[in-house]
Amino acid sequence: MPRLFDKVTIAGVGLIGGSLALAARQRGLVGEVVGFGRNEANLRTARERGIIDSYSLDARQAARAADLLFLAVPVGAMGAVAAACGPVLRPDAIVTDAGSVKGAVVHAVEDALPDGIAFVGAHPIAGGEQAGAAAARGDVFEGSPCIVTPGATSTPAAILKIRDLWEGVGMRVVEMDIDAHDALLARVSHLPHVLAFALVDALRDRDSELMALAGSSFRDLTRIAASPAEVWSDIFVANRQQLVAALDEFSAAFEELHGAVGRGDHGALRALIERARQTHAKMGK
Amino acid sequence: MPRLFDKVTIAGVGLIGGSLALAARQRGLVGEVVGFGRNEANLRTARERGIIDSYSLDARQAARAADLLFLAVPVGAMGAVAAACGPVLRPDAIVTDAGSVKGAVVHAVEDALPDGIAFVGAHPIAGGEQAGAAAARGDVFEGSPCIVTPGATSTPAAILKIRDLWEGVGMRVVEMDIDAHDALLARVSHLPHVLAFALVDALRDRDSELMALAGSSFRDLTRIAASPAEVWSDIFVANRQQLVAALDEFSAAFEELHGAVGRGDHGALRALIERARQTHAKMGK
Repeated sequence: MPRLFDKVTIAGVGLIGGSLALAARQRGLVGEVVGFGRNEANLRTARERGIIDSYSLDARQAARAADLLFLAVPVGAMGAVAAACGPVLRPDAIVTDAGSVKGAVVHAVEDALPDGIAFVGAHPIAGGEQAGAAAARGDVFEGSPCIVTPGATSTPAAILKIRDLWEGVGMRVVEMDIDAHDALLARVSHLPHVLAFALVDALRDRDSELMALAGSSFRDLTRIAASPAEVWSDIFVANRQQLVAALDEFSAAFEELHGAVGRGDHGALRALIERARQTHAKMGK
Repeated sequence: MPRLFDKVTIAGVGLIGGSLALAARQRGLVGEVVGFGRNEANLRTARERGIIDSYSLDARQAARAADLLFLAVPVGAMGAVAAACGPVLRPDAIVTDAGSVKGAVVHAVEDALPDGIAFVGAHPIAGGEQAGAAAARGDVFEGSPCIVTPGATSTPAAILKIRDLWEGVGMRVVEMDIDAHDALLARVSHLPHVLAFALVDALRDRDSELMALAGSSFRDLTRIAASPAEVWSDIFVANRQQLVAALDEFSAAFEELHGAVGRGDHGALRALIERARQTHAKMGK
């Protein structure tokens, strides 16, 4: 694939921002890469690892004359970063992001950017609990889905280039409506994070040595409880409406099981578990 | 290690029962192995795979003159199987089990066995969601913990032999009080299963193709929702008292997060998530 962008600004050179820079450079999709962030030690690590060519702690300086701005900061910060960078981008620049929430982000970023600069929201479903440029890897995206959510300023040409970018680093691109994305992610990602945080939090006064006897299912379930607090409090608030609906749906299912356990009701438990197993089987593995 | 038992009856030749038979035979810990169960096709599979030498659909026939009875049936069935097998075991026989609940099982099995036959409860923390003899593997137990819970009829000699058996198949044996086991497992295993079942159940009316876009964290979290309904409804009811306490503790933590999301309270969310992260870090990986 030929080069897609001459100068890329990565706002937030963490696991996702750093990995996109690495993956896109390795494949020749981008030219110069400039990092922006608040943590200079992290930016230095990124430069030393060859993830970025240079960096600035000043968003305007980092974004000057870039034709791609990639927003990989916590979702609550995206509007402000877009506002700072917008005026100094190349006039034909495209902006994309990696936010786990689209509605709130798309509106904030569209409002913040100057006319003529296209924003194409994206959500690469990849990564993990690790944070920082030290955790970035060029193969993080390979084989995973990337949901692209065209918005009011997404021109067909910009959508195509952003699809090429994500497909270029190995992702399967799926286009989706902004609200459909947020409803889906509330249920398959944001709600599960709430559950993992709540489960671990409920155990805070227990003997941690005993907890080490827990089996692999417990470790699988709670692994995401290691995710960064700032990132996730932002996501929860940004997707608050859909997340509250998802939490309510979960509560109803949980209380049905809770009640059946309390009554010692074998028949109800077997029926509820069987229904869950069948739903799980339909979802694929 | 020399042979520990001459004739072993495996009641329930599923993943755990079949794996113990395989692992113990491979290491020369046991002589003849007879399977008992209700599903003849499964028992035939076990015989064809060399997991057992023979089988019977009749518990008394399978247990005749055995010096080890291993109970690997759903926890609600253990008392009845022990009652059927007890009178025909060798007079110096030892009985052990693999139940995820100890209090209810220990009482039911102790009551069901003739005087002089020692029961030593055990809970190998290993396995997975697969079921049946086809899923049995001789290395399932290696490196995982096995909680042994001595009870009223556990003689020192019987405890030693059961420890030797589980250590012989590669497990780290930890002795624990029956109530401490049930309180711990309610929180690190039974509660997580309720959460996985409830999460999946809450999604039962959603588009399963969309669900396939879920990331690895969702798949990790819901993998245990594939677990068998009969096994888990039995466990939930058998450990009802501890599980209800654990469900209540979880509810309190969940409602704190639920409330903070509903209010869009960044500060409270950051604090709750940070507290969970710190608890998670203390638990090891």
